[in-house]
Amino acid sequence: MTLLQPGATIGILGGGQLGRMLALEAARFGFDVHIYCPEVDSPAERVAAQTWQAAYDDMELLNAFAEACDVVTYEFENVPVAAVQAIEAAGTAVRPGTKSLEIAQDRFLEKTFLAENGIPPVAFERIDDADTLSEALRRFQNRAILKTRRDGYDGKGQIRLLDPDMAALAAARKMLAEAPCILEAFAPFEREISVVVARTEFGSLTFDVSENEHVGGVLMRAAVPAAIEPDIATRARDAGVRLADALGHIGVLALELFVMPDGGLLANEFAPRVHNSGHWTPDACETGQFEQHVRSVVGWPLGPVTRLFDVSMENLMGAKVLSVPNDLSSADRPVVYGKREALSGRKMGHITRRLGPAS
Amino acid sequence: MTLLQPGATIGILGGGQLGRMLALEAARFGFDVHIYCPEVDSPAERVAAQTWQAAYDDMELLNAFAEACDVVTYEFENVPVAAVQAIEAAGTAVRPGTKSLEIAQDRFLEKTFLAENGIPPVAFERIDDADTLSEALRRFQNRAILKTRRDGYDGKGQIRLLDPDMAALAAARKMLAEAPCILEAFAPFEREISVVVARTEFGSLTFDVSENEHVGGVLMRAAVPAAIEPDIATRARDAGVRLADALGHIGVLALELFVMPDGGLLANEFAPRVHNSGHWTPDACETGQFEQHVRSVVGWPLGPVTRLFDVSMENLMGAKVLSVPNDLSSADRPVVYGKREALSGRKMGHITRRLGPAS
Repeated sequence: MTLLQPGATIGILGGGQLGRMLALEAARFGFDVHIYCPEVDSPAERVAAQTWQAAYDDMELLNAFAEACDVVTYEFENVPVAAVQAIEAAGTAVRPGTKSLEIAQDRFLEKTFLAENGIPPVAFERIDDADTLSEALRRFQNRAILKTRRDGYDGKGQIRLLDPDMAALAAARKMLAEAPCILEAFAPFEREISVVVARTEFGSLTFDVSENEHVGGVLMRAAVPAAIEPDIATRARDAGVRLADALGHIGVLALELFVMPDGGLLANEFAPRVHNSGHWTPDACETGQFEQHVRSVVGWPLGPVTRLFDVSMENLMGAKVLSVPNDLSSADRPVVYGKREALSGRKMGHITRRLGPAS
Repeated sequence: MTLLQPGATIGILGGGQLGRMLALEAARFGFDVHIYCPEVDSPAERVAAQTWQAAYDDMELLNAFAEACDVVTYEFENVPVAAVQAIEAAGTAVRPGTKSLEIAQDRFLEKTFLAENGIPPVAFERIDDADTLSEALRRFQNRAILKTRRDGYDGKGQIRLLDPDMAALAAARKMLAEAPCILEAFAPFEREISVVVARTEFGSLTFDVSENEHVGGVLMRAAVPAAIEPDIATRARDAGVRLADALGHIGVLALELFVMPDGGLLANEFAPRVHNSGHWTPDACETGQFEQHVRSVVGWPLGPVTRLFDVSMENLMGAKVLSVPNDLSSADRPVVYGKREALSGRKMGHITRRLGPAS
C-alpha cells in the first residue's frame, strides 16, 4: 500500500461540505487537494488547490484528474462506480475502493451484505412490482417503509407505509414503477445511534457511539455520549469494525443502528465515508473523523480517538443559518460550509457544543 | 465595528504559512479567503478561494482586492504601510490597522513604544553612523547586538558584537552604511518566553506563556507550560495586554520577553500577528491563535483559551521535513506548510507533541 508524504496530491470526488472538511484536514498535513465535481463554485473547491469541474462520466477529464493525483477518495456514495473504475484503470488508487461504493449504493446489496456479515439489519425484502409489495406489506403487518434501492439520501426516495391509505399506496406504486425498491419493516426503535470507524490495513479505531435525532429522514442532532448501556456501545463498535473489515474498507465509514426496546441492535444503513453523525469528532476528540480519513487514504497511522468533551452537535439547516454573536456561546464550535444559497432543508453548517469534560 | 457573517470575504496580505493557517480557520467558519501576495504558487493560495498575485505597490490591484474583500488582515509585518493605507482608502477595513504595523516595522519605534508603555525593553540606542556605534558599544561594555531598524526577521539583519574583533566591527560598519540601525545591549537572560494575545474591542485574552528556544535567531522549539514562577507568567500576560491596548490592536499579537536572572522581564520584540511561538495553541487549547485572529478581524467574540495539554512544539526546518510514519508518534500533531522547496533553514512545518493533560 502506497505511503504518501506531504506535498503529494489527494483527489476528492465530490465538492460538498464533506469534501471541504476533508480538504481542510489534508491541507493541514501539507497535501495539495484537487476537487472533481460537476457543480460550479462548490464549497470544497474554495479551499482546494485545483478544481476539475466536469461530469462524472467525462472519461477524458477523469483520466487527467487521475494522472494529477497520487491518491483519490470520494466524499459521497453516489459517485458512479464507473468513474472510480476509470481512475483506477488510469493507475491511481482510490480509497476506499469500489466494493464499499457498490454495496452502499444499493440498499438491497447493502442490507444483504450486513446480514451476511453478522450485522442484522431491519427485516427487508426486495420489491420489484406492485404484487410483491402487497404481499410483503402483509408480512410486515402493514407497517413498513418503501425505499428506492439507489440514489436515496437524507430521507429522499422513501415512503412510509404505516397502515397506508389509498393515496400512500398509489405513491408507493408510482415510485416502484420508476425504480426498483426494497421494503423495510418499520422498526419500533428506542433510539438511533451510529458508530464512526476509521480503518487502515493495519487496524481500525472507532469513535465513541453517538445518539442521533432525525427529523424527516435528516439528521438534526447528535449527542455524545449516547444514553446507552456500555454493552450496547461495545456491540455497536464491534459491528462497525466487522463491517469495515468485511468490506476491506480503507478510510472512514459510519454505521447507523437502531437500539430496540430489548437492547438488541438492528442495522439501518452505512455510509462509506465521513458522516454527519461524526461531525462532533474534530471538536471533541484528539483526532477527528476527517483527519482519520485523510490519514487512512495516504497510508498514515491513525491518530488517537480519545474523547475530551461531552458534546451535542446540531445541524444548521436552510434559512436558519448562524447569526453571530447571538447564536454563539463561548463553548460552541461552529462550522459553516460556504454554500451560496440557504435553501430550505439544506445543511448549511453545524455547531458542536462542548458540554463539559468527557464523562 | 463591522460584524461579518459567514459568507463574507476575508482578504489576507501575504501568502506564507501564517496566511495558510489563517485561511484554513477562516474557511471553517464559512468565510471565503482571498490571498494577495507577489509570490507565485504560495502556500496560502492553495487553500484560498481566490488569489491576487501582484506587487504590494500595485495600486490598481490593491484597489480591486479591497473592493472584493469585506475585511483585510495581514500575515506578516513587512507588508508596506502604503499598501494597507490604499486598502483603507478604498473603504475596506484592515485589522489590525496601520499603527501596529508601522511600529512593528521599525525596531527603534518598537522599542521606544514598549518603553513608553511600561514594558521595559532591553537597553537600546539608535545608531545612525560609525561614531555613535563606537560610543554606544562602550556604554554597553562591548556586549551588544546591532540590528537594522527595518526588514529583519528570523535573525536576519543582525550582527552580534560580543567583544567584537576587527572583522565583526567592519561587518557592523558595512551594515550601518546600508541601513539605519539600533544597538541593543546583550541581555544575559535566563530564558526566552512569549505571550500570545488576542484582542477585540470588547477585551483581550492571553494564551499560556510559552518558553522558547532559538537557534541562530530562529525559533526552534516552544514548550508549554514554561518553567517559570506564576508571578512571572502573570507579568508577561499583563505586558502583552498592555501592549495590545496601547496599540489599539484588533487581532492577535505576540510579545517576546527575556526572563532575567533576578526574575525581571525585558521585552525583546513583538509581532503584530499570529506567531510561531503560538503554533501549539490549535492543538492544545480550546481555541487556537489562528481562530482567535479570524474571530477578531470579523468582529466575533473570542473563544476560550483554556489549555488542555502540556505540549512541546518543534519546527520542521529545511531539508529535515516530516517523514511519515517514522517521525510521527500517535501524540504528535503535525502541520506541514506546503512549501515547494525545502531550502536549508526554511520553516517547512511544525509538530506539536501532546505530552499529557494540562498540568
